[in-house]
Amino acid sequence: MRVYFDNAASTPLAPEVLEAMMPYFTEIQGNPSSIHHHGRQVRAAVETARTTIAELIGASPSEIFFTGGGTEADNMAIRGSVSSFGLKHAISTEIEHHAVTHTLEYLEKEGKIRFHKLSTDRRGNIDLKQLEGLLALNDSPSLVSLMHANNEIGTMINLQEIGDLCKKYKALFHSDTVQTMGHVAFNLRELPVHFVTGAAHKFNGPKGIGFLYVKDDIKIPAMITGGSQERNMRAGTENVPGIIGMAKALQMAYEHLEEKTSHLLKLKNYLKNRLESEIPGIQFNGETESENSLATVLNVRFPGTDEESMLLYSLDIYQISASGGSACTSGSNVGSHVLKGIGLSTVEAANSIRFSFGYQNNLSEIDYLIEKLKQILISVTH
Amino acid sequence: MRVYFDNAASTPLAPEVLEAMMPYFTEIQGNPSSIHHHGRQVRAAVETARTTIAELIGASPSEIFFTGGGTEADNMAIRGSVSSFGLKHAISTEIEHHAVTHTLEYLEKEGKIRFHKLSTDRRGNIDLKQLEGLLALNDSPSLVSLMHANNEIGTMINLQEIGDLCKKYKALFHSDTVQTMGHVAFNLRELPVHFVTGAAHKFNGPKGIGFLYVKDDIKIPAMITGGSQERNMRAGTENVPGIIGMAKALQMAYEHLEEKTSHLLKLKNYLKNRLESEIPGIQFNGETESENSLATVLNVRFPGTDEESMLLYSLDIYQISASGGSACTSGSNVGSHVLKGIGLSTVEAANSIRFSFGYQNNLSEIDYLIEKLKQILISVTH
Repeated sequence: MRVYFDNAASTPLAPEVLEAMMPYFTEIQGNPSSIHHHGRQVRAAVETARTTIAELIGASPSEIFFTGGGTEADNMAIRGSVSSFGLKHAISTEIEHHAVTHTLEYLEKEGKIRFHKLSTDRRGNIDLKQLEGLLALNDSPSLVSLMHANNEIGTMINLQEIGDLCKKYKALFHSDTVQTMGHVAFNLRELPVHFVTGAAHKFNGPKGIGFLYVKDDIKIPAMITGGSQERNMRAGTENVPGIIGMAKALQMAYEHLEEKTSHLLKLKNYLKNRLESEIPGIQFNGETESENSLATVLNVRFPGTDEESMLLYSLDIYQISASGGSACTSGSNVGSHVLKGIGLSTVEAANSIRFSFGYQNNLSEIDYLIEKLKQILISVTH
Repeated sequence: MRVYFDNAASTPLAPEVLEAMMPYFTEIQGNPSSIHHHGRQVRAAVETARTTIAELIGASPSEIFFTGGGTEADNMAIRGSVSSFGLKHAISTEIEHHAVTHTLEYLEKEGKIRFHKLSTDRRGNIDLKQLEGLLALNDSPSLVSLMHANNEIGTMINLQEIGDLCKKYKALFHSDTVQTMGHVAFNLRELPVHFVTGAAHKFNGPKGIGFLYVKDDIKIPAMITGGSQERNMRAGTENVPGIIGMAKALQMAYEHLEEKTSHLLKLKNYLKNRLESEIPGIQFNGETESENSLATVLNVRFPGTDEESMLLYSLDIYQISASGGSACTSGSNVGSHVLKGIGLSTVEAANSIRFSFGYQNNLSEIDYLIEKLKQILISVTH
């Protein structure tokens, strides 16, 4: 049995999504900027996809800009708003995705902003009072960038609450929603948030395509300059099959969302309960209740004293794929900045594993995981 | 008969390329940064693709960086080299792709560089003496950005000659090779050029993927910051199927390159000869001889006095797709900056059409084109 519990890193492409993309790899192949038949055909499909995505999240098509993925969308929002509005302050945390923290650090190094880091509690929650204090203190409007759900520990923020605070202090509010887009319902017309982001491969769409939502009263400049694509906001020939696939994937993601969420929660809670009752000393990182945590993520801290846990490698031998942190950083071999950020020791972080679920997972895979985990832990302690 | 003569805008995906991509849409689906089985499998494929591309163009794998397309690659080279080396001067022309000119204009507006524009003759050739004069005049090293082949009129530069000049004056040399990559042989180990770019959809690969070659002694910063992908040079989950498809497409492009080029030249010269002998007053924009022009492009100036030529629209009615300029600018409805740049009047530019060929085109399509062109021109003049 090969088991994939790393859906927060990337989800498998839904077969129906591939099917929707196929005509754009075969018979329908123009450049959407061309004005002839071949071009118009593709342009129409791209704009239909934009409308589909917009309608699914309560936005208007003119608020959706296609990008090469979630990271590019985060960069575009952050760099663009700092440059467009001359913002001098940015407020975020240590436990954001690197697409946000590294971008803010870069802008700080360039002397463009001061980067204020909110502290988080041991479950990854920020302190709203600290946020308000900072917003009140800053002498000019700030950019607030807080991810909707943490990709490693699943802890979620309340977009409404934080957006209201930002509004009060005229701050711009960017939320990296890469882990919640397609997993949680959005009505962006109602939400006080200026920028959200999506990456298709996190909701069973293709890799290499994402989007940035920019609230209609906000104007930011292009980050990639050249042709007039995306209404001069992102130059370069559009990734047409990717765009079509992303729209289809988001559409499917929001069909039967409640059933899917309850299936995911069943998996997550089943794993949580069995671990708690069968493995002594087990703990969890981040929030785990459904009100303020991702249904897709359970970050488990195993008991152990090893400097370097071999747990992940052992699971891999049993053909179970899970993760020690976000995939985007695992290439760099430095351990999880999120687990460090919420105060875990190096050993605690090294003994932590993120299991992340998709709709294709089932309970028998969790039974298999538990069985193998027990075997591994017994062989370690004996 | 539906005829596609707009291959410089985008080429149809080769069926073999789609076939190579398919496993990465179906059974092989991890995130290449994940360290488990699912991730490693994908990582190996991505790195094999990088090596394939590098070997095909005489580069080493560490010199190849995957991007979302040619425009992003041009931006990365230009913005990165200006920022990394503190360059104060950039030298280019009016007739570059907007990915280059708009990016240089942006950097000039930001006060980072002075953008010097070389003049071109009526066929789109630069004056090497003027280039050398500017290089000698600039008080600090310059960035020279000159496209290998112009996307609208096909005129080519000599990379060796210009690279040697750049070397003499310690200038960095970037060449937008989007129109020649996969169409002309490269040995980058021998060529004195620091940056070249590729866009897969220009050589029968997929849209939404490209690459930047950076000569190994050059270090530039990331333009999109975040995770450590592409050795910290381009953050964001890799477009795995796109990368696999691009490598396959480039491999196929360089197989039987001579036969393909001679097929393209046969098409181009057949069209040129028939137009010259059968349509009085016909002229051509840009160089047309095979030594210094693209085999894929023939830019034709039709006789006519209309303010707004309806030729393209008429061809479209006959199901022939061609272009009035680059697709990247046709959305903006401002006419060709290239034709204006080489000194054509608005009317001359409006009566010009770019026909661009692919290996899938054949002589009978050109016969059909000539037949329809004659019908259209007769109905206009009578």
